[in-house]
Amino acid sequence: MSHNSFGHLFRVTTFGESHGPAIGAVVDGCPPRLTFTRDDVQAALDRRRPGQSRFTTQRKEPDQVEILSGVLEASDGTLTTTGTPIGLLIRNVDQRSKDYSNIAGSYRPGHADFTYDAKYGVRDHRGGGRSSARETACRVAAGAIAKLVIPEITIRGALVAMGSIAIDRSRWDWEEVARNPFFCPDPIAAREMEGYLDGVRKSGSSVGAVIEVVAENAPAGLGAPIYGKLDSDLAAAMMSINAVKGVEIGAGMGAALLTGEQNADEIRMGADGRPVFLSNNAGGILGGISTGQPVVARFAVKPTSSILTPRRSIDTSGQEVEVSTRGRHDPCVGIRAVPVGEAMMALVLADHVVRHRGQIG
Amino acid sequence: MSHNSFGHLFRVTTFGESHGPAIGAVVDGCPPRLTFTRDDVQAALDRRRPGQSRFTTQRKEPDQVEILSGVLEASDGTLTTTGTPIGLLIRNVDQRSKDYSNIAGSYRPGHADFTYDAKYGVRDHRGGGRSSARETACRVAAGAIAKLVIPEITIRGALVAMGSIAIDRSRWDWEEVARNPFFCPDPIAAREMEGYLDGVRKSGSSVGAVIEVVAENAPAGLGAPIYGKLDSDLAAAMMSINAVKGVEIGAGMGAALLTGEQNADEIRMGADGRPVFLSNNAGGILGGISTGQPVVARFAVKPTSSILTPRRSIDTSGQEVEVSTRGRHDPCVGIRAVPVGEAMMALVLADHVVRHRGQIG
Amino acid sequence: MSHNSFGHLFRVTTFGESHGPAIGAVVDGCPPRLTFTRDDVQAALDRRRPGQSRFTTQRKEPDQVEILSGVLEASDGTLTTTGTPIGLLIRNVDQRSKDYSNIAGSYRPGHADFTYDAKYGVRDHRGGGRSSARETACRVAAGAIAKLVIPEITIRGALVAMGSIAIDRSRWDWEEVARNPFFCPDPIAAREMEGYLDGVRKSGSSVGAVIEVVAENAPAGLGAPIYGKLDSDLAAAMMSINAVKGVEIGAGMGAALLTGEQNADEIRMGADGRPVFLSNNAGGILGGISTGQPVVARFAVKPTSSILTPRRSIDTSGQEVEVSTRGRHDPCVGIRAVPVGEAMMALVLADHVVRHRGQIG
Amino acid sequence: MSHNSFGHLFRVTTFGESHGPAIGAVVDGCPPRLTFTRDDVQAALDRRRPGQSRFTTQRKEPDQVEILSGVLEASDGTLTTTGTPIGLLIRNVDQRSKDYSNIAGSYRPGHADFTYDAKYGVRDHRGGGRSSARETACRVAAGAIAKLVIPEITIRGALVAMGSIAIDRSRWDWEEVARNPFFCPDPIAAREMEGYLDGVRKSGSSVGAVIEVVAENAPAGLGAPIYGKLDSDLAAAMMSINAVKGVEIGAGMGAALLTGEQNADEIRMGADGRPVFLSNNAGGILGGISTGQPVVARFAVKPTSSILTPRRSIDTSGQEVEVSTRGRHDPCVGIRAVPVGEAMMALVLADHVVRHRGQIG
Repeated sequence: MSHNSFGHLFRVTTFGESHGPAIGAVVDGCPPRLTFTRDDVQAALDRRRPGQSRFTTQRKEPDQVEILSGVLEASDGTLTTTGTPIGLLIRNVDQRSKDYSNIAGSYRPGHADFTYDAKYGVRDHRGGGRSSARETACRVAAGAIAKLVIPEITIRGALVAMGSIAIDRSRWDWEEVARNPFFCPDPIAAREMEGYLDGVRKSGSSVGAVIEVVAENAPAGLGAPIYGKLDSDLAAAMMSINAVKGVEIGAGMGAALLTGEQNADEIRMGADGRPVFLSNNAGGILGGISTGQPVVARFAVKPTSSILTPRRSIDTSGQEVEVSTRGRHDPCVGIRAVPVGEAMMALVLADHVVRHRGQIG
Repeated sequence: MSHNSFGHLFRVTTFGESHGPAIGAVVDGCPPRLTFTRDDVQAALDRRRPGQSRFTTQRKEPDQVEILSGVLEASDGTLTTTGTPIGLLIRNVDQRSKDYSNIAGSYRPGHADFTYDAKYGVRDHRGGGRSSARETACRVAAGAIAKLVIPEITIRGALVAMGSIAIDRSRWDWEEVARNPFFCPDPIAAREMEGYLDGVRKSGSSVGAVIEVVAENAPAGLGAPIYGKLDSDLAAAMMSINAVKGVEIGAGMGAALLTGEQNADEIRMGADGRPVFLSNNAGGILGGISTGQPVVARFAVKPTSSILTPRRSIDTSGQEVEVSTRGRHDPCVGIRAVPVGEAMMALVLADHVVRHRGQIG
Repeated sequence: MSHNSFGHLFRVTTFGESHGPAIGAVVDGCPPRLTFTRDDVQAALDRRRPGQSRFTTQRKEPDQVEILSGVLEASDGTLTTTGTPIGLLIRNVDQRSKDYSNIAGSYRPGHADFTYDAKYGVRDHRGGGRSSARETACRVAAGAIAKLVIPEITIRGALVAMGSIAIDRSRWDWEEVARNPFFCPDPIAAREMEGYLDGVRKSGSSVGAVIEVVAENAPAGLGAPIYGKLDSDLAAAMMSINAVKGVEIGAGMGAALLTGEQNADEIRMGADGRPVFLSNNAGGILGGISTGQPVVARFAVKPTSSILTPRRSIDTSGQEVEVSTRGRHDPCVGIRAVPVGEAMMALVLADHVVRHRGQIG
Repeated sequence: MSHNSFGHLFRVTTFGESHGPAIGAVVDGCPPRLTFTRDDVQAALDRRRPGQSRFTTQRKEPDQVEILSGVLEASDGTLTTTGTPIGLLIRNVDQRSKDYSNIAGSYRPGHADFTYDAKYGVRDHRGGGRSSARETACRVAAGAIAKLVIPEITIRGALVAMGSIAIDRSRWDWEEVARNPFFCPDPIAAREMEGYLDGVRKSGSSVGAVIEVVAENAPAGLGAPIYGKLDSDLAAAMMSINAVKGVEIGAGMGAALLTGEQNADEIRMGADGRPVFLSNNAGGILGGISTGQPVVARFAVKPTSSILTPRRSIDTSGQEVEVSTRGRHDPCVGIRAVPVGEAMMALVLADHVVRHRGQIG
């Protein structure tokens, strides 16, 4: 019940509000003698950064990361991990708190305003405070460290549906993901999304999305029985991302529609003398433990709750009000959830790999 | 990374294999001075017990629970919790180990045989050993204790889809759940399922299902920000159940299809001076914290992997083989997942309530 | 804050009261493919068992352990760990509850009666309930499993002082420990203790003791910085044993009397090309991490609080009373703490070794 | 096994090395709606700060704390906790790394140099890196937050022995603690220590000390049975402080010398209708749970390992060398351990109080 820590042995603790002085993370349990540069972490942050297209919030956050501890710096800037906790700091820069003054006393529908007040009796209303997706910058920075632990594993995410527009999986092209502002692997769907989202944005509305994250080359044997299942940890990880309402592994909710014959992934021996699964309904996990197949997780992000259309709500004194949000927001918060999903996959796998290999690595 | 423990303050540790001498659970962190009887726990186990209809495995397990510690017994059999750990023991009785002799050396597709060997290099093959759904009896027994902690919260589960047969929500009737062997709340769908599953069973096949669990009257304020989110814990809980491949909260994966206007649950003041939400797409959780609305979780159970149809696989020496399972099995393991889902909901809520209220209760 | 679990990766959960039906333990995180027999565990329990000399309580507990899970049994009774949790059960047999009826309503000075009531508002008064040293049988059984994980490490404990009788360290002989009823390594001190304790016992009084536990051949590098220090874990472990009031590592409290020159253990290179420390004031731990020297922990056990001499106290209604204890008790509960201290050392080291090596071992 | 986190519900994570850019802490689980100012935290840091007398290291560290998150700031600078994690940052200023260049390749006896290399294969040698007592500034800052949670409890520490000079307890005066540079409660002993430590300092030697920390007005009922004992947590807490080799509760190691009659604290009813203990050998804890008496913990700090006298050691290549330390150091590191011990007591009690009361407070 560590509210702000994630992971067991490779463990990340984050802090910071949307409109406070800074946000940050402490990465604990990172094995020693891994090398990287500050740019590796910065590049991951840049990929998630808002304001890069007209489809994400126009908040201008440079999100410059400072690495405060846990590394030895060589004269060329190369950093070597020492096994001690890595402190990461990102100063908040573009905090237009006044944008939020009109909603200080109201509960925005779909937001955590009501529940934070119910729980704590006090709340930093500026930009959602701690409940802001701004916290996910810390996850992405920590995920960049996690990837150092598992260099052999390739982790990639993609947006596979936006509102009613779903990709055609036969057109899946990982290269395409970097070519459009949606992280969409299907170029035709991406073009459709562009027009669609422009309409959503101009009308002050918002729309949901589905993200898929795939980890290739994870070894068999990661995870554990019962409550330490790899899929159980992935479900917790993905559901902890802001606005996520559903998580699937492999065939996911659709597994309910299959027969036993259709579902069970058959096994043959490959030419290289290693087992080959003929399908991957399991999403690379059986009994909570990785099979060596790609680990496939999917999650649904609800539409951004901040919209221009007035919605009925109440204020903190119990008066009925109407709320509309005029701040800068993403019309589809699911887009920027793609690098966050990748980061969470990296955090979960790094944690299990450290357990599997031992601390020394 | 406690593989066999679940929860934080209200915490359950289970042990035991399908075909060993016994299974059991230790319930730690249960508040003192709660009263119950052994029959309360037994009744919960009886609801999950196999062999009660032709649609569940014919294994005959009386599943008699013994309460070993953590209670004071009055002369009339009433038990009072003392705050110390409650040890629960269930002896295994009907262990036909010979049924499994033919698959000792093979990896059954869809089962954890391959992954347990990959991880541990050794495996109790009898009935799936630790990966057997038999472990869920411990969850149900522990869930009965958890319910003592939260008497004001009503937790009910239902099977809402079996294969391609989905219920009609306008016919939802909680009373109906106890009247058919499927825990199905829609009497017309239940009748359909009966014929459908008979066919599946006779053909030696199997089919998946979707379960929904609803907790009514949970207070607002349960849960926590970021990684201690109530929905994150629920996702981990439900995904830890055998054969589950997807978890949804409220609108779930379908949230991706909604617009911001459709999704955000509006709020009005009720006649009793308390906030009323006009819809529940959030499934009772905003920002990871309960709203006071019903908490709604849904999960998909894949079809039983043990089927009569031979499937291609390999054996432990890497030889290609065909495997079919002749043991006694459920044609739809999702049915018995209903009480298990209820138990997991109870465990998660009891854990958060203990945190909320403090230990003394 | 798991009240009844100890350890992180190699983790033990215990349950059971002194006078309930049974006590038991669940050992989670034990690596797979370790072999042992039930007799290995039983032998450890027999060493701690009461009633073996006139110097320990005359309660007759056979302490027969049943191994319920987590192992595969060969036809010759050899058990192989499977990596799944090992359930251990010990039935209580000799429960003379009536011995305690006279103190049901009173708080025995030095016992946990008052504090359990203050905390829980209810209490199993029979034999101290959960606060009874009977729980330590579970630690000893679990410790026998822990030793399987670290076969290269030799763990031995000894009683080094009883009341005012301290051993002469120049006479330390590990062989002697098994030859007297006190686990005392100094034969001359042991003889003195015999007469001394006979007097204590006959007068219905009790006396304290100091125990030393030494682990030889632990590798350098176990432990971790700051809050994961090996000595911090050992301090928690030893202080968790009933009646312990002080814990020392190496020079212990006496380190305060040393100068920097006296205290710092100098290092030379040994003939085998490995570092040799010229002294061991550090008790084998520097900065929380093992040096490769013997790990040395010491702890003080207060005198048994159950004595014949009447002591002033109050009852549960706040009336002033006098309490004397007529049940069967150890005149020096420190004696039986020796195997318990060894078990706790084994649990701590096994936990750190599993972390160091990884799960697979 | 969180190496850099302490506590369960009220939980502190620290990061940072002696000679890196900064050190810091994240305080998680702090209840909401507590008010304080930055000066409250700064004052605690100032009390621990080095360079305030000739008896502590002359390193000049202003130790200015920045509060990054978890609070709402009023216009008058008053901070109110929001229940979200409180990020604390302290920049390192006076980092004379060159002082350490001569010992980069050598293992200083008594320091963690050898063990960090054994564990991690890499080490920040500057000022001890992560093993430096500089980390304790984070504990003190976090401890200041912890004290907000338990305003009714008075926590005070004192140095009760330095080398062979022990205080006379009959002269104990809490007021005196602030009047001498040693936190010594006995004015006569304090004067003796002054001359003594001057000699030690001038000779380039060092000396150990014993610290006692007392918490008054803690309620009965804090702590838990078995492995969640309050004294077990305190032992872990105190032993985790740099250079600590022994921890005592109440009568401590001396409990071994007592008889049952002497040891058991008798109870009478006080004039106010509340129980009164007639002595406090238990140190305020019975069966791991607080009695309501003062909670008394004591710990021994070994002499500073950095001394001018050359000591025999080896270098990282296994060559035999002699090492002496010329950096700025405390002749008695135990002095500055007093506020650290108080902070650890506050952290443990706040953690248990949060558990006792529930999160909402």
